[in-house]
Amino acid sequence: MAPYVTEFDLYEPEHVDGKDAVKQKVAVIGSGSWGTALARIAALNAAEKKGFHPEVRMWVREREIPGKGLLTELINNTHQNSRYLPDVSLPHNLRAVPELADVVKDATLIVLVVPHQFLTPVLETLSKPGVLAPNARAISAIKGVEVAGDQIYTYPSIIEKRLGIPCSALGGANIALEVAHSEFCETTIGVPSPEDAALWHAVFDAPAFRVHPIEDVAGVSLSGALKNVVAMAAGFVDGMGLGGNTKAAILRIGLLEMASFTKEFFPESSSLTFSHHSAGVADLITTSFGGRNRKCAEAFVKTGKSFTQLEHELLNGQKLQGVATAEEVFHFLEARGRLQDFPLFDKVYRISFEDMDPKCLFENL
Amino acid sequence: MAPYVTEFDLYEPEHVDGKDAVKQKVAVIGSGSWGTALARIAALNAAEKKGFHPEVRMWVREREIPGKGLLTELINNTHQNSRYLPDVSLPHNLRAVPELADVVKDATLIVLVVPHQFLTPVLETLSKPGVLAPNARAISAIKGVEVAGDQIYTYPSIIEKRLGIPCSALGGANIALEVAHSEFCETTIGVPSPEDAALWHAVFDAPAFRVHPIEDVAGVSLSGALKNVVAMAAGFVDGMGLGGNTKAAILRIGLLEMASFTKEFFPESSSLTFSHHSAGVADLITTSFGGRNRKCAEAFVKTGKSFTQLEHELLNGQKLQGVATAEEVFHFLEARGRLQDFPLFDKVYRISFEDMDPKCLFENL
Repeated sequence: MAPYVTEFDLYEPEHVDGKDAVKQKVAVIGSGSWGTALARIAALNAAEKKGFHPEVRMWVREREIPGKGLLTELINNTHQNSRYLPDVSLPHNLRAVPELADVVKDATLIVLVVPHQFLTPVLETLSKPGVLAPNARAISAIKGVEVAGDQIYTYPSIIEKRLGIPCSALGGANIALEVAHSEFCETTIGVPSPEDAALWHAVFDAPAFRVHPIEDVAGVSLSGALKNVVAMAAGFVDGMGLGGNTKAAILRIGLLEMASFTKEFFPESSSLTFSHHSAGVADLITTSFGGRNRKCAEAFVKTGKSFTQLEHELLNGQKLQGVATAEEVFHFLEARGRLQDFPLFDKVYRISFEDMDPKCLFENL
Repeated sequence: MAPYVTEFDLYEPEHVDGKDAVKQKVAVIGSGSWGTALARIAALNAAEKKGFHPEVRMWVREREIPGKGLLTELINNTHQNSRYLPDVSLPHNLRAVPELADVVKDATLIVLVVPHQFLTPVLETLSKPGVLAPNARAISAIKGVEVAGDQIYTYPSIIEKRLGIPCSALGGANIALEVAHSEFCETTIGVPSPEDAALWHAVFDAPAFRVHPIEDVAGVSLSGALKNVVAMAAGFVDGMGLGGNTKAAILRIGLLEMASFTKEFFPESSSLTFSHHSAGVADLITTSFGGRNRKCAEAFVKTGKSFTQLEHELLNGQKLQGVATAEEVFHFLEARGRLQDFPLFDKVYRISFEDMDPKCLFENL
C-alpha cells in the first residue's frame, strides 16, 4: 500500500493498431454541488488535455423550472447550476443531459456522485446490455457504506460488482463551493491500478485541486463515510460548549477508530490513508469544523430535539449522512460483537438514539 | 518506538532497604497559564496518591502587587493565580515559592515550564552543586527549539546535558484555561524509560487529562515547536479569506513536514508521534484554529504590518513563538542545504521576512 509514483501528467492516449488515438470520454452522474464542481474540473481538463474527448456530459434529472424552461436547457444556456453552485461559471464543453443512457454513451470514464439512495436505480440502468462502453471505468465520490447484517460493503465494491468494471474512489477535504472557486485544496483517489491512477489523475488534477492517487480504494471510500460519524461527536463537543482541546482529542481518537475499523474489516487497506492523506485527516478536520453533520449534532445537544426532528426542520427531511452511517456502523459492529473496541462510534449511536447523556462521550475512550 | 504499555496507575513508591518509602516530590518551575495549570493537576494528584509528598511547589518570580502585597503571598492566600488563570481555584497543597533553590529543594520530579528565553538562568541555578536532589528527574513543557548554525537541539536534550538528569517532554492539545476547567483532553509525554513513564503518568494523569506516555522525547518536543510554524501558515490562509479545504490541506502538508523534519534530524524519533498522538495532530489542530500564532499571522496578511509591529501592538513586544521558530528552522535548513524538501517551512519564513506574497504559499507544496 503506497502512493503511486508514476508521472501522472505524462498520461497519453493509447494508440490502437496504428489507428487514431482512443479518446477518453468523461461522464458525470450527479449534478448536486459536488457533482457539478467535479464535472467543472473534468470539463476544464478535457478541453485542454490531449487524449480527451472535449465534451463532458453531466446527468441532470429533468424538470421544469417555473418561468424558465427545462433545467438541462437552463444549465446549458446559462452555463451555471444556480441552485447547487451559485455564481460559478461552468465551461461551455460541460453539457447537462437528462437521459442517463445518453450521458454514458461511449464514455470511458464514469464519475458516480449521486446521493447513495439513488445509486440502485442508476446501477440498474447502467448494467443493461449496451449502455456502457466495454472499456469503461468508474470512480465513486459517494459518501457512505452499505451494511447488511454482519456484512459491510463500500460503494466502489458494489459498483464494481454490479457493472463489472473497475471502480476507484475519490475523497478529500473538498467543500464543493470552495473547489468551484479554485481555492487551493487536495483530494485523494484510491485506484486499483497504475493505469487507472494515471487516467483519473489526468481527469481531475489542476493547479488548485491537487490529486494524490493511492492504492487504497476501500480506505478512501470508508473514510468518506466514517468521518461523518466523528464529525457528529465533534458537534456534540461544540453543543456542550467545550473548547479546542476536547474537540482535537475527539478528532484524534476518531481518526484512529476510523483507521482501525477499516484495517480490521478491509485488511487490504492502509492506515496511512487516514493519517497522511487528504481523504483521511484533512477531510475529517474540514468536516468537523464546517460540515452540516457537526452543525446538526451541535443543535441536537443544544435543543434536545431528535435527529428526525432536526432533519425535518433543517434538511427538509433529508437524512443526515452521519446519523445514517452511525446507525449502520453500530448495527454492523453489534452483529460482529465488536462494539467494545470502537467506543466513539458506539457512543455517537447511543447518544443519538438511546438517550445517552452526551457527557458520557468521553468515558472509556 | 512504541507507546508504553505498562500499567501506569500501578505506580508505587520504592522501598529502600526496609526504610520508609521514598516519597516523590514535585516542583514546578514556571507560573504562567500553562505552568499553573500543570501545577494544579500535579498538586491534586500529589494530595491523593500514595508515594507523593503532598506539597507541590511552584516557582513564582516575586514582585509587589500594588495595594495587595507580595505576589507569592497573594497566590498562597487566595489560592488563585488571577493574572494567568483567572477564576480557577488552586489546591491548598500547591505553594508559590519565590526562590528557585527552595522550589526544587528535595524535589525528585522537576517540571520545567518557563518561556524558553528564561531557561538559561534557570539551568544555571539548578546546576549549582547541592541544588538538585541526586535522584531528580525533569520534564520539559517548553515550546521551541535551539539552533546554532547547522546544529539543532531540543530543550529536553539541553536540560539533560546541563543538569545531568533524565528529561522527558510533555505536549498536546492543551489550551491552559480549558485544562484548568477540567474539560476533557489528552496530553502526550515522551519519556526515556518505562520507570519515568510510570512516574510522570502518576504525576499528571487525571480523568479529564489523559496522559499517554510514548518513547519519543524528541518528537514530542519538536512537535510543540514546529506546530507553531504550521499554525502561522494556517493564519495566512485565514488572512487571505480562504476556506476549510485550504486550511485542512495546509495542516495535512504541515504535519507531514513536521514529521519528516523530525525523522531526518532526530532519526531516533517516530512519525507516529505526529500522526497518532495528541502532541502531534491534535495539538496542531487546536493551535491552528485557536492559538495566537494563527491570529497574528492572519493580522499580518490583513493589515500588511510587520511581525515586529504586530508583536509590539498585540503582545507587548513579546516575540511570537511561531515567528521565532520559523526563523530558527529556516536558518538551520539553509545551513544544512535542505530547504527544498520543506517548502512550507521555507514559505512561512519568506512570507514573514522577505516580502513574499502569501499567495505563493501553495507553490511547490
